[in-house]
Amino acid sequence: MTSPAEQHPRQADPSAPAAPDRLSLLAEADTGLLNPGWAGSPVAQETSDAAFLRHMLQVEAAWTAVLAEHGLATAEQAEAAEQACDPSAYDLVALAHAGQDGGNPLIPALKALREHLAGVAGASGAVHVGATSQDIIDTALMRMTTQVTAAILRDVRAAVGSLVELARTHRQTPMVARSLAQHSLPSTFGLRAANWLDGLAQAGRRLETATAELPLQWGGAAGTMAALSGKVAEAHRQGILDDGTGTFHLIEALAARLGLSTPAGPWDTNRMPVTGVAAALADVVAACGKIANDVLISARIENGELGEPLVAGRGGSSAMPHKQNPVLSVLIHSSALSAPGALAQVYTAAGAANEERPDGAWHTEWPALRQLLRTAGGTAARTAELVAGLRVHEDRMRENLHRTGPLLVSERLMSDLAPRIEQARGGEPGSGKKRIQAIVDRSLSSAHAAENTGGSAPENSADFRTLLREAALDTVSDEDLETMLDPANYIGEATALVDRITQKHEEWSRA
Amino acid sequence: MTSPAEQHPRQADPSAPAAPDRLSLLAEADTGLLNPGWAGSPVAQETSDAAFLRHMLQVEAAWTAVLAEHGLATAEQAEAAEQACDPSAYDLVALAHAGQDGGNPLIPALKALREHLAGVAGASGAVHVGATSQDIIDTALMRMTTQVTAAILRDVRAAVGSLVELARTHRQTPMVARSLAQHSLPSTFGLRAANWLDGLAQAGRRLETATAELPLQWGGAAGTMAALSGKVAEAHRQGILDDGTGTFHLIEALAARLGLSTPAGPWDTNRMPVTGVAAALADVVAACGKIANDVLISARIENGELGEPLVAGRGGSSAMPHKQNPVLSVLIHSSALSAPGALAQVYTAAGAANEERPDGAWHTEWPALRQLLRTAGGTAARTAELVAGLRVHEDRMRENLHRTGPLLVSERLMSDLAPRIEQARGGEPGSGKKRIQAIVDRSLSSAHAAENTGGSAPENSADFRTLLREAALDTVSDEDLETMLDPANYIGEATALVDRITQKHEEWSRA
Amino acid sequence: MTSPAEQHPRQADPSAPAAPDRLSLLAEADTGLLNPGWAGSPVAQETSDAAFLRHMLQVEAAWTAVLAEHGLATAEQAEAAEQACDPSAYDLVALAHAGQDGGNPLIPALKALREHLAGVAGASGAVHVGATSQDIIDTALMRMTTQVTAAILRDVRAAVGSLVELARTHRQTPMVARSLAQHSLPSTFGLRAANWLDGLAQAGRRLETATAELPLQWGGAAGTMAALSGKVAEAHRQGILDDGTGTFHLIEALAARLGLSTPAGPWDTNRMPVTGVAAALADVVAACGKIANDVLISARIENGELGEPLVAGRGGSSAMPHKQNPVLSVLIHSSALSAPGALAQVYTAAGAANEERPDGAWHTEWPALRQLLRTAGGTAARTAELVAGLRVHEDRMRENLHRTGPLLVSERLMSDLAPRIEQARGGEPGSGKKRIQAIVDRSLSSAHAAENTGGSAPENSADFRTLLREAALDTVSDEDLETMLDPANYIGEATALVDRITQKHEEWSRA
Amino acid sequence: MTSPAEQHPRQADPSAPAAPDRLSLLAEADTGLLNPGWAGSPVAQETSDAAFLRHMLQVEAAWTAVLAEHGLATAEQAEAAEQACDPSAYDLVALAHAGQDGGNPLIPALKALREHLAGVAGASGAVHVGATSQDIIDTALMRMTTQVTAAILRDVRAAVGSLVELARTHRQTPMVARSLAQHSLPSTFGLRAANWLDGLAQAGRRLETATAELPLQWGGAAGTMAALSGKVAEAHRQGILDDGTGTFHLIEALAARLGLSTPAGPWDTNRMPVTGVAAALADVVAACGKIANDVLISARIENGELGEPLVAGRGGSSAMPHKQNPVLSVLIHSSALSAPGALAQVYTAAGAANEERPDGAWHTEWPALRQLLRTAGGTAARTAELVAGLRVHEDRMRENLHRTGPLLVSERLMSDLAPRIEQARGGEPGSGKKRIQAIVDRSLSSAHAAENTGGSAPENSADFRTLLREAALDTVSDEDLETMLDPANYIGEATALVDRITQKHEEWSRA
Repeated sequence: MTSPAEQHPRQADPSAPAAPDRLSLLAEADTGLLNPGWAGSPVAQETSDAAFLRHMLQVEAAWTAVLAEHGLATAEQAEAAEQACDPSAYDLVALAHAGQDGGNPLIPALKALREHLAGVAGASGAVHVGATSQDIIDTALMRMTTQVTAAILRDVRAAVGSLVELARTHRQTPMVARSLAQHSLPSTFGLRAANWLDGLAQAGRRLETATAELPLQWGGAAGTMAALSGKVAEAHRQGILDDGTGTFHLIEALAARLGLSTPAGPWDTNRMPVTGVAAALADVVAACGKIANDVLISARIENGELGEPLVAGRGGSSAMPHKQNPVLSVLIHSSALSAPGALAQVYTAAGAANEERPDGAWHTEWPALRQLLRTAGGTAARTAELVAGLRVHEDRMRENLHRTGPLLVSERLMSDLAPRIEQARGGEPGSGKKRIQAIVDRSLSSAHAAENTGGSAPENSADFRTLLREAALDTVSDEDLETMLDPANYIGEATALVDRITQKHEEWSRA
Repeated sequence: MTSPAEQHPRQADPSAPAAPDRLSLLAEADTGLLNPGWAGSPVAQETSDAAFLRHMLQVEAAWTAVLAEHGLATAEQAEAAEQACDPSAYDLVALAHAGQDGGNPLIPALKALREHLAGVAGASGAVHVGATSQDIIDTALMRMTTQVTAAILRDVRAAVGSLVELARTHRQTPMVARSLAQHSLPSTFGLRAANWLDGLAQAGRRLETATAELPLQWGGAAGTMAALSGKVAEAHRQGILDDGTGTFHLIEALAARLGLSTPAGPWDTNRMPVTGVAAALADVVAACGKIANDVLISARIENGELGEPLVAGRGGSSAMPHKQNPVLSVLIHSSALSAPGALAQVYTAAGAANEERPDGAWHTEWPALRQLLRTAGGTAARTAELVAGLRVHEDRMRENLHRTGPLLVSERLMSDLAPRIEQARGGEPGSGKKRIQAIVDRSLSSAHAAENTGGSAPENSADFRTLLREAALDTVSDEDLETMLDPANYIGEATALVDRITQKHEEWSRA
Repeated sequence: MTSPAEQHPRQADPSAPAAPDRLSLLAEADTGLLNPGWAGSPVAQETSDAAFLRHMLQVEAAWTAVLAEHGLATAEQAEAAEQACDPSAYDLVALAHAGQDGGNPLIPALKALREHLAGVAGASGAVHVGATSQDIIDTALMRMTTQVTAAILRDVRAAVGSLVELARTHRQTPMVARSLAQHSLPSTFGLRAANWLDGLAQAGRRLETATAELPLQWGGAAGTMAALSGKVAEAHRQGILDDGTGTFHLIEALAARLGLSTPAGPWDTNRMPVTGVAAALADVVAACGKIANDVLISARIENGELGEPLVAGRGGSSAMPHKQNPVLSVLIHSSALSAPGALAQVYTAAGAANEERPDGAWHTEWPALRQLLRTAGGTAARTAELVAGLRVHEDRMRENLHRTGPLLVSERLMSDLAPRIEQARGGEPGSGKKRIQAIVDRSLSSAHAAENTGGSAPENSADFRTLLREAALDTVSDEDLETMLDPANYIGEATALVDRITQKHEEWSRA
Repeated sequence: MTSPAEQHPRQADPSAPAAPDRLSLLAEADTGLLNPGWAGSPVAQETSDAAFLRHMLQVEAAWTAVLAEHGLATAEQAEAAEQACDPSAYDLVALAHAGQDGGNPLIPALKALREHLAGVAGASGAVHVGATSQDIIDTALMRMTTQVTAAILRDVRAAVGSLVELARTHRQTPMVARSLAQHSLPSTFGLRAANWLDGLAQAGRRLETATAELPLQWGGAAGTMAALSGKVAEAHRQGILDDGTGTFHLIEALAARLGLSTPAGPWDTNRMPVTGVAAALADVVAACGKIANDVLISARIENGELGEPLVAGRGGSSAMPHKQNPVLSVLIHSSALSAPGALAQVYTAAGAANEERPDGAWHTEWPALRQLLRTAGGTAARTAELVAGLRVHEDRMRENLHRTGPLLVSERLMSDLAPRIEQARGGEPGSGKKRIQAIVDRSLSSAHAAENTGGSAPENSADFRTLLREAALDTVSDEDLETMLDPANYIGEATALVDRITQKHEEWSRA
C-alpha cells in the first residue's frame, strides 16, 4: 500500500496559498465536467467548496460581531474576522486534504482563520467562542441552503409563470391524452401544461415552506452550550453583560444576523431541518422531470408535438447534421433519475444518527444535501428555460389525435349514442351498447389485421363511420354524428381544469 | 420457459371464492414472517391486500351513493354497492393473479364487484360511472393512508408524551455526552431524551400537515372528466340535475364522503400528494431510528445506561439464558435502514411519470408507499412501547461519566481556572492556559501509556488533581476546585433546553 | 397508544392451526395485489412465507438426518423431523406475529416444530443441535435463492434463445437507430435485438456464476461452532464418531445434502454471498428493463415498429376499446425502476453489519433479497413471454427510417461523396465537405421553417436530392447517388455484429 | 429568471486557458472539502475532471496512433494527437460549462483538441475518425476504472495481508462474541479478524474478476461502426489496407493499446460492464464498513478493546483534549452508508437505458461510477491504514469477557455438565438440564434485580458457582468445574476457522 501521505504531502500552511498553479489547483477537482446537469448553472458557484468555506468563515465572523456588540469581543477583532472571510485567501486543496484528519472541514479552516487573525490582538481567541465544529458546519449548510433555494425558487416561479401562460394559450388546443404510452382520449395541450404547473407549483410551495425558518445550530461540544453559558455567567459576574441578557439572547442575535431561526434546542442528531429541505428539493426535481419526460417523447420525430427552444450551439451533432438533441430535457430527465438517491442518502444519515454527534452518518449528509441543491438548481434553471421557449406544434397534435380515428371517442358513443339507438329501436336495456360494441369490434379486428399500422386508421375510420351511420339512422343527423365523432368535442372539463389550476397558482408565481 | 398460465390456472370466478384451503390461500402470501418490523402491529391489517381491496370497493360504493343522492342512481343500487364491500366475499389470490393482465388490481376487482351486483337491476352499471382505474386506486391509497397515518400519529403522540415525562424526570440526571462515539462533555439524560422528542415531534407534526388534506383522484380515463361531464350534461338536459350542480359539485360530494379534499385538477402524473406523505413517514422512522440507535449502544453490557422494557417472552435466547436482546431497538434500527430506500422509490416513480398515466412508474409507487406505511406504523408502535417502559440506570450513567476522569471538564478549566491562575501568578496572557494544557498533556500521555484502559482513569484522575491543586494553590480553594471538577456541575444550559423543548411539544403530544 | 398485543392476541399454539378462516388468514397478507410485476408468476409461490417456512424446516430436518447418519440421532427422530416439514401444518400468521418477539422467524418456528415432534422420543432435542437461528435462516435463504434463481435462469435462457432467433431473422431489417430520442443513423432491428440479448445473456451468466456455489451458514451462536464442536468431542470420547470425523465433516455432509457449498468460515456478518446474488438479480432486471423501454416506445401509435404479443384478456380497456396496453413492458419497466432500491438495501445491510450478528442490518436483508428474487422472477418470466411473441412491423420501421430523409446519411456523404467532388472539381482540401455542408444547411433551414413536421421530409428530400445531383454531376451517376442515399445501404457492420453476438451466446442459451 | 448564460458568459476559447486565477478556477470546484472520506487519497487525483479529460484525450490519441500504424493517418498527426493530451493545456472550467450544450463533455473537449491540432496538416481530421462521443467517454471511463481499481486492489491486498497477520497473532486471544449488541458466547479476536479478512478478500477477488476484461466502446454514432466501416472499405479499394484487415482488426488494435478488451458488440445501452464493476466496488466498501463498525464500538471508552492507530494530528480535539476520535472508522463507516446509493444509481441508469443511446440515464452513470471509485478508493486506503496499525487491548477483551460471568457458558453446562449430573443422580431424562436451568434462573433473577449492572456480575458469579458446585458435587472436581466455566475454554473451532480462512486468502493477498 502506498500511504496517501507519501503521495500527497501536506501543505505546510493552508492559510497562505502557494502561487497558483493551474494543474495542481485542479488536479483533484470536480468542476462539473461529468455533471452537465448543473455545471455552468448559477448554483455551481453557490455550492462550491469555495462558497461553503466562505459561509463557514462568515458564520465565525458573524458570531464575533455578536460578541463585540455585547462587549465580549472588541470591534477590531470583529472587523478582523470580517476581513478574513474571503475564500480566495485560503488554500482550498490543502484544507480539503487536512479535513480528513479530524473528519470535518471546519477544523483546518478554523486553524487557518486563526492564522489570518494572528496580527490582531486577541482576535484568534475571539472567534469560535463556545462553538464546536458542528455548530459552524451545520449553520453554514443552512445559510448556503437558504441562499441557493431562494435562487431555485426564483426559477421555479418563472417556470410556473411561463406555464400559466402556456396553459391558457393552449387551453383548447386539441391533443390526444396518453395512458400507458397509448392513446386514451382527447384532451388539450393546455390541460397537460396545467398539470405540469400544478406539480411544479406544489413543489415550489413546499420548498418555500421547508426553507422559511431554517435554524442555526449552536450547542457547543455536547449540545449543552456549556462553554458559552460559562462565558456568559462570567460576563454577568464582571458586569459586562446585564443580567437580562443570557445565553439564548446571544444566540438569537446570531440567528438574526444570519437570517436563520433559533431552534428550541440543538439538532446535532435530529436532522429534521435537513430532511425537510431535501424532500422539497427532490419534489422540485420530480416535478421538472415529469415535464422533461413528456418533452422527450413529444420531440421524437414520429410524434413531433413539441420542440425544445432552438439555441445556437446547443443540441447539434457535427456527424449528424439532421439531429437536434433535446438536451435540456435529457439533462432534466437525468436529474430526475438521480435526485431520489441523494434524498435517500439524507434520510439514511438522519436515521443512522446517534448520541450527541453521529459517528459517520452526519458526514454523508453534506455531499448529499449539496448534490440535491445542485441537482435542483440546475434542473430548475433548465426547466425555466425549457418552458419559456417551448415550441408547440399544433398541427402535429391534431395529426396524432386523428391517428386512432373515431374509435378514440367510443367511450362517448357508448354513453351518448347508445341510449338514443336503444330508444329509437325499442330494444331491451343494453341493446344500444351491444350494437355499438359490435361495430367497434369489427373495426378493431380489421385494424388488428392491418397490424396496427397508423396508415390504416383513415380506412377503419371510413368503415366505422359507415356502420355507425347505418346504426344511428333516424336517431341523429349525420351532422350531429360528425360532431359527436370529433375528438375536439370530447374534452370534458379540460378548459375548466385549466382555469382552476392556473388561478390556484398564478399569484404565487408572481410573488 | 414454463408459461405462468400453465402453472397458475386462473380461477374461473374471482367473485365467488372457492371453499377456503389454508395452503392454497397462503401459498403465495407474505404475512410478515420476514418482516418482524411491522408484523403483528396494527398497521399490518390496515395495509393488507384485503384492506386495500376494501378501500377500493368502498370508493366505488361511495361514488354510487353520491350518484344516488343526486338522482343519477337508485337507492337500491347504492345499497347493493355498499353491501358488496366486504373483502372476504372476493378471492384475493385470484384477483392478484388477474391484476397482471391489465397491470392494475382494480380491473379484476371491478369485474368481480359487478358480478356481485348482478342481482340488482342496473347496479353493475351504477358503479364506476365516469371513473377510470387510476381514480379508484389512487383514491383508495389516499384513504388507506389517511387511516393508517392517523394511527401512526396516535403512537407518535404517545411516544412524545412519554418522552416529555422522561426528559423532565431526568432533567438533571448526569450523563456523559458522546460525539463520534467518544466522551465529549457532561450533559444530562434529560437533554438526550428531549432531543429525541424534539426530532420525533417535528416528524409527527410534519406527518400531520402532510396528511391534513389528502386529495381524492377523479379525472376519468384522460384526466378530463369527459365521461362524467357528458353524464352531467345529459342530466341537465333531462332535468335530473339542476343547472347549478356541475361535475365538480359531484366530485366534492364524493370527497366529503370519503374524508378527502378536492384537488384543483387530477394528479395522475403529478405525485406531490404521495411524495409529501412518504417523506413525512420517513421522517417519523428516522426520528425513531435515532432513539433506537442510542438504546442499542446504551443497553450494551459494557455501557449499561439504558435497558429496554422487560416483557416476558421477548428478547430471550434459549441457548444463551444470560442474554436479553434489545429486540424493539433492533427492529426500529432495522426500519431506519430500510425506509429511505422506499422513500427513494416513491420519488423515482414521481420523477419518471409521463403523459396522462405513467407507463410503469405509477406501479412502483403502490408497494413503496405501503412499505413506508407499514414500516412507519410498526416503528411508531414499537417506539411508543420502548420509551414508555425504558429502564434508566442512573448509577451506570454516573459510573461512565467518571471514566474519563476530570479531563472531561478540561474545557471548563481552560475558561474558568486558567484566568485565575494567570491573574494570581501575574503571568503573560495565555500563560494560565499553557499551564493547564501542560497538566492535561502529562495526564494524557500517562493515560495513553496505559493504553486507554478504563481502569486507569482513577489514577490519572488522582495525578491530574494533584497537579491541578499545585497549580491552583491560593487561587481557588480545594473545595471550589472539586466543584469545578465535578462533571455534574458543567452541564451548561441542559436543564433550560429540556424546558424549552418539552414546552414546545407538550401540548401537541396531547392533541 | 393501543398496545399491539391487545389488538392481536397471540394464538395459543402456532403448531396447531385453527380451523381455516379465509378472512383471518388473509387479514394481514400481501398476495401480490399491489405487485402485478410478480403476482401470479412461479416465483410468487417459491418465495412466499410458506415457502420460506418450508425451507427452514427442511434445513432442520436435513441436519437431523446428517446427525442420524453419524449415530448422533436416531432414524426415527430424523424421520419425524422430515415429516414435520409441511408448512400447512403450521399457523403462519401466528408465527409471523411471534417473530417480532425474538426479532426473527426461526425462534417461533422452532418452538412449533418441537411441539410437532413431541410424540417421538428425543426428537425435539435432535433438531437444531448446535445451531443458532441465523444458521437456519441464512441457509434457508440460500436454498430458496438457489431454487428460485434456477427458475429465473431457465426463463433468461429461453428469452436469450428467442432473441437469437429474432436477431438473425431481422439481421438486415432496416430500422433507424436513435440516440437521445432522436434519429441518428440507419441500423437494423436485428442489431437492436442482438444488443438486447448481449445484455441479457451477460446478466444471466453473472447470475449463474453468483449462484453456482452458494454457501450454507453453520456457526452456532457465536460463529465458533462451540456447541457442535463439544458434541463432536463427546461423541469421539464415547466412540460414536471415529476420530477422523470432525465438526467440519458433519457440516460438509449437511451442505452436500442441501445442495450448497461449505464456506471457509461463518459469514454471519460478511454478507458477500448475498450481495453477489443480489447484484446479479438486479443485472437481470436491468437487462430486461432495457428491452421493455424500447418496446414501450416502439409500440406507441406514432412509432408502431413493435407490438407486444396479443393475448386475449390482456392489455384491453373496457372504456377505451381501441386501446391495447403494452402491459408486459409496463410491468417490466416498473420492475427496472424498483430493483435498484432493493439492491441498495442489501448493500446497506452488508455495510451496516457489526460484530458476530448485526443488530438490525441483517433483518433488512431478508425482505430485500426476497423482493429482488420476486422482481427478477416476474421480470424474467414476462420478458421471456414478451420476446417470444414480439410482433415486428417492418413496414413501420421502413416508414420511420425515411422520415428524416436523405439527411440521415449525411455522415456518409461527407466521407464518400465529398472527396469525389473535391477531386473532380479540383478544389482545395475540405472544399467538398463545405459544399455538402452548404446543401445540408439549406435543407435543414427549410425543414426547421416547416417546424420539423414529418410530412415535410419528402419535399426536403426532393430539394436535397436536386442540389446534391447538381453538386455531384459527373462525379457519380444518379444511380450510384441513389444507392449512396439509401439508408439501408449504410448499416456498417450491423450484420457482422449480429453474428458475433448471437454466436457468443447461442450455446449458453441452450445449456 | 436570470439566464445562466448571462451569469456565466462562455469563455471564448476553452483550448487556450486564460492566465490562471485561483478564485475563478476554483469558484465552482469540489475539491473534496465536504468529502473527507476520499479527499487527499490517491484516487482523488485519479478520478478528477483533469484525469478524466486526460483519459478522453488519450483515447483519441491512441486511436490516431492505430490509424497511423495502418496507413490511415500520418505519424505526424499521431504525434500531434499524443502531444495534445496534457489536460493542463485546456480550460477545464470552460469545458465543463460548454458540456451542457451537447449534454456531454467530449463535444467541447474534441473541439478544443482540434484547435490544438490546427498547426499540423490534417491532424484535426485524423482524430475521432468514425467515432462518436459515447465511444470516447465510455472508453475513457473504462480506462479510468482500470487504473483506479488496480490501486484499490493494492490497498485491499495490503489490508488482507495485515488481517492475516492479525488473525494469526490473536488466534487464541479470548474475546466475547456479540450478537444483537449483546454478549453471546466466548470467541477469539483472531476469529473476528479472520471474518473481516474473509469478507474483504472475497470483495477484492470480485473486484479483480469484474475488472479483468473491461471492454472498450467503439460503435460510432449508431453502434453500427458505419463510418469506420466505410473508411475501411475505401482503404481496401485504395489498397491502403490489405483485405485481411477489417474494421474489427483496427478496433482490436485500439483495445490492445488501451489495455482493454474488445466486446462482441457495442454496449451503449447494455451497461453490464459498468454494473459489474460498480457492484464489486460496493462490495469492497461494505466489507470495509463492517470492520469500521466494529472498531467504532470497540474503541468506545466503555468497551476499550481496540484503538485506531495513533497518528499525530489526527482525531484530536482542541476543546476536548481527552478525546481521541476514531476518525478512520468514522470516515469508513460514512462511506459504507453512502456507497449503496451510488450503486443503485448505476443500476437505475442501466435499467432506464433505451434505444441506441439513452436519453438521460447514461448521464447519471458517470458521476455515480466516479463516486463509487472515489468512495471505494478512499475507503480501501483508510482501511489498509486502520488494520495495519490497529491497537488490540487484550486486557480489556478479557475484562469484558468476564462481565457476564459464568452464565456466558451456560450453553456448555447444559451440554456437558447436565448429563453427568443426571447420570450421577439417577434422575429421569432431562432432569440434569432442569437442575442447571433452575440455577441459571435464580442467578439471572438476582442479576435482573440488580438491574443488569456490570458490577454485580462477580457476585452473581460467586452465587452461581456455589450452587453449581453443590449440584455437581461428586460428578466433577472443583478444578474440572472451573475449567468448564472458563470462557477461554469454550471457543469451539475458533482457531481452526482462523486457519481455514487465512489459508484461503493468504496467497491472494500477496499476488
